[in-house]
Amino acid sequence: MNTPDKNDLERLDIHIPPIDEAARQAVEVRHGQLTKPPGSLGQLERLAVELAGIQGRDRPSVQRKAVIVAAADHGVATEGTSAYPQEVTTQMVLNFLHGGAAINVLARQADARVVVADMGVASDLDAHPSLYRRKVAYGTQNMRYGPAMTEAQARQALRAGLEIIETEARQGLDVLAVGEMGIGNTTASAAIVAALTGLAPEAVTGRGTGVDDQGLQRKIEVIAEALAVNQPDPQQPLEVLTKVGGLEIAGLVGIILGAAASRVAILIDGFIASTAALLAVAFNPAVKPYLLATHQSVEIGHRVILNELGLKPLFDLGLRLGEGSGAALAFHLLEAAVRILNEMATFAEAGVSGKKT
Amino acid sequence: MNTPDKNDLERLDIHIPPIDEAARQAVEVRHGQLTKPPGSLGQLERLAVELAGIQGRDRPSVQRKAVIVAAADHGVATEGTSAYPQEVTTQMVLNFLHGGAAINVLARQADARVVVADMGVASDLDAHPSLYRRKVAYGTQNMRYGPAMTEAQARQALRAGLEIIETEARQGLDVLAVGEMGIGNTTASAAIVAALTGLAPEAVTGRGTGVDDQGLQRKIEVIAEALAVNQPDPQQPLEVLTKVGGLEIAGLVGIILGAAASRVAILIDGFIASTAALLAVAFNPAVKPYLLATHQSVEIGHRVILNELGLKPLFDLGLRLGEGSGAALAFHLLEAAVRILNEMATFAEAGVSGKKT
Repeated sequence: MNTPDKNDLERLDIHIPPIDEAARQAVEVRHGQLTKPPGSLGQLERLAVELAGIQGRDRPSVQRKAVIVAAADHGVATEGTSAYPQEVTTQMVLNFLHGGAAINVLARQADARVVVADMGVASDLDAHPSLYRRKVAYGTQNMRYGPAMTEAQARQALRAGLEIIETEARQGLDVLAVGEMGIGNTTASAAIVAALTGLAPEAVTGRGTGVDDQGLQRKIEVIAEALAVNQPDPQQPLEVLTKVGGLEIAGLVGIILGAAASRVAILIDGFIASTAALLAVAFNPAVKPYLLATHQSVEIGHRVILNELGLKPLFDLGLRLGEGSGAALAFHLLEAAVRILNEMATFAEAGVSGKKT
Repeated sequence: MNTPDKNDLERLDIHIPPIDEAARQAVEVRHGQLTKPPGSLGQLERLAVELAGIQGRDRPSVQRKAVIVAAADHGVATEGTSAYPQEVTTQMVLNFLHGGAAINVLARQADARVVVADMGVASDLDAHPSLYRRKVAYGTQNMRYGPAMTEAQARQALRAGLEIIETEARQGLDVLAVGEMGIGNTTASAAIVAALTGLAPEAVTGRGTGVDDQGLQRKIEVIAEALAVNQPDPQQPLEVLTKVGGLEIAGLVGIILGAAASRVAILIDGFIASTAALLAVAFNPAVKPYLLATHQSVEIGHRVILNELGLKPLFDLGLRLGEGSGAALAFHLLEAAVRILNEMATFAEAGVSGKKT
């Protein structure tokens, strides 16, 4: 990007191709030929159609799968808005790299690789083949008293996200699940969603990792103060991200926009990853049809985001872990959708009678 | 069963062991040690706990999986209550045996075997290694004018179901999905559910494979007539099954009761399989904790059954195919639940700090 103007920067100079309508229609035609009543496989049929449109292929592929977990720390964590101490961010990143976290288990089951992006963890991390070291800062500033980061930091994190997904796409990638880790990041996410939607903090703030009633009240107050102090303009996603966001959220926005630019389907996870998706759509609405909702999180703000994006989750399992865990569970459904398309017999092949006329 | 009295016959002389509370508690303790906020994996945690209680093992297994698809024809199909002709039952059974149906695809994905039970298909079927030939009759009689079957036929189908699951359990079986095929069987299921619950036919009758408004109205009327003619006693499940049931449904009741007797977890599918589960609970309430709901079907009567049984489905994908397709999709979630238990690191192992006190 050479001397871009502000608008290019906001849109991150990304070209997102339109959805392939012919591929979608080809899948719809095939669904009508397979030995089942039309439409009887519900969301599985929809998933195959959407995937075809995203990838631009009549027979979409879910062979090459990755989960990218973006991690960062949050200055606001010192306000006691989380049930866990800040050091857990670093500890969990190491757990991801050693393969012991829930996301590792679920990604292994789905035969997906797990990649971690350090966007701003508050400690130094050793090199590791599954780790992108793109630390922008040792965590954000406390948004209760001013902007969480500078605009330059936000841009740096967005660009790092774009570079990460470009590298991953070059290695071969059909479907991406996005996840995150960062003590304090449900606080930042609630602030972003409140800023973008104009809803009151209490309408979008949940218990995160499990704060009690008193903790929840404090969390809501901190978010209200952060919004009052920073006054982010809801029409300016870069400003919202800068003032009340997080570095892992910024990284995910870049990753999501870049994935769409590469025609990679994006499985969005729970509240924080969906906040990044909401920001990505604000930066560039063309990303929207590349987003596939997966689960309905326990966090109340998640429902708000899915409604805003017009997305219907595939399942509601009462998850509230993050890491990309809900998104990773959805790989199986995408695979089922594609297998149905590729492996089922048609009425003609199986000699099965069609619907009565 | 030697000269059993009527009560024994109704209960099918089956001993269903109690759930293992110690195994459930052991899983709950382990969940608290794994590197995630307590309870944050929601239904995945519940599934592992239930599976442990069912199998009586601290580390339950989902290695050995089967789908049993029970098939039969229905005399009531001549009333035009289905969108497909009766011959489709036989044609789809052959499709199952050739591996081309949706259930074959989804079972392959889950590494589960598919077994078909001919309980009463209206044509003769050749021997096949995946087919149990237990035909009781060439379909039921038309329940609009009298009982669908004799009590002797109902007992024969129930016993055949018990024998099938005993054979399958001997081969090794951890988790069972139950499915069905039978043109006309949503009509029989709606009649059974109306009979057992006392609800009006229109409250439990849906479009099945896809009848139009006129077809739906005719279906409701036929069910109302069948109930008026047969007057099944809601307190007598054998009578309800005999008068307005189906042979594949009777087979499934036996399979479900026998699976519980062998401590096999049972994934129930949509409307028809759940009707069999509701009957099984009426025969012997001890079967209830062995039942795991999987998906929420489009059929309105399915919601009624799940409410009656106090079961919460894992997902709502708008499925209405039957065959066990929704249940087969749930194998993945059970496996995820068990993998979490076996593969995740504990806080101590990973050196992750616990919750703040």
